[in-house]
Amino acid sequence: MKQIMIEKDILKNNNEIAKRNKIIFDDKKIFTINLLGSPGAGKTSILEKIIKNIKKELKMAVIEGDLYTAKDAKRIESHGIEVIQVNTGGGCHLDASMIEKSLNHIDMKELNFLVIENIGNLVCPASYYLSEDMKVVVMSVTEGNDKPLKYPSIFQKASVVILNKIDMIELTDFNIKEFYKDIYCLNKDIKVFEVSCRQEKGINELSQFFISKIKNKKSGL
Amino acid sequence: MKQIMIEKDILKNNNEIAKRNKIIFDDKKIFTINLLGSPGAGKTSILEKIIKNIKKELKMAVIEGDLYTAKDAKRIESHGIEVIQVNTGGGCHLDASMIEKSLNHIDMKELNFLVIENIGNLVCPASYYLSEDMKVVVMSVTEGNDKPLKYPSIFQKASVVILNKIDMIELTDFNIKEFYKDIYCLNKDIKVFEVSCRQEKGINELSQFFISKIKNKKSGL
Repeated sequence: MKQIMIEKDILKNNNEIAKRNKIIFDDKKIFTINLLGSPGAGKTSILEKIIKNIKKELKMAVIEGDLYTAKDAKRIESHGIEVIQVNTGGGCHLDASMIEKSLNHIDMKELNFLVIENIGNLVCPASYYLSEDMKVVVMSVTEGNDKPLKYPSIFQKASVVILNKIDMIELTDFNIKEFYKDIYCLNKDIKVFEVSCRQEKGINELSQFFISKIKNKKSGL
Repeated sequence: MKQIMIEKDILKNNNEIAKRNKIIFDDKKIFTINLLGSPGAGKTSILEKIIKNIKKELKMAVIEGDLYTAKDAKRIESHGIEVIQVNTGGGCHLDASMIEKSLNHIDMKELNFLVIENIGNLVCPASYYLSEDMKVVVMSVTEGNDKPLKYPSIFQKASVVILNKIDMIELTDFNIKEFYKDIYCLNKDIKVFEVSCRQEKGINELSQFFISKIKNKKSGL
């Protein structure tokens, strides 16, 4: 048997499940993000930082995607919030059926915010809608400013880019003017947050942005 | 139609093509590497540095994998060596059929060294044998020392890891002892080169390693 094209059918099937999940999230007014980025961009570190601000006033949970380990889930769990570990067994992205199965294990009562941390990968996860309200991409300045144009799909579909490790920019050849030109060229409505986890720069603004979105959904706006 | 498992057949088909390519490379004594790593790990930058050392004494060519753009290929081409651009059109890895097609465009006469720079992705490219003599993974200290355990397959299959941006290690929480423990636990025979492209640290040792491998293959060792 040769390779055959089943991508469209897989995505159709995925989208149908995602739509069912979305009805649940909307009904329960749970604001949901799909957190994406390269390995090591800082997805888990940023999540740890914003959890501290958000959990004071809102109930949140995390679905933590990983190939095999529970390393990131353990980091998140130490902050005292509910975490569901999804191991893909080597698979390169999460899909909507994994989210559907996870929902059986989440206490959704009074839940306001659900973060789905995807597999570290700028390619495959871009194709799979997971029923999120928005896609959020974390990229670090150490990856280089050419990444939006090299991996356009994920940046075109994202509502937010978190530009992390901004404290290291002087040590790299990251051209921030080129970055902004490219990112707005790909996606004129995208919102960019410049952040340094290490120096806690930009964390409050980012937390407030999510808190505002969560509260808007909660109050039916 | 639902998602069906065709992975084994795709890989079997891929491996058959790869074996045909390998016969050509072995017959012509062309040493070939599959250069892997996350987006922004520094694959192209390292390649640019070692080209300068290697091209003085050996003929080399590069197959440059990218989703859509020719950005990296243009960088490599500026060093005066032959480059074949392969765009996957959004695909997350190169496969052996792409290499087979590229061979029609490469001048293999007296060619000693072929570098296949794969798509920036630590997951999918690990599954596809491209007829290389060795897999070489580039990772940067800014990605964090947990990456080998989080993405084990690619590190288990690699012969070499290039640990890049080593000059930045003091600015990160990269634990180098943990890194070495994990990497040798996954793959006891793996060779590690600590490199800084920015400071040109480790570039000569890395170049000499490849030159030695290339010459060994050239002389039939």
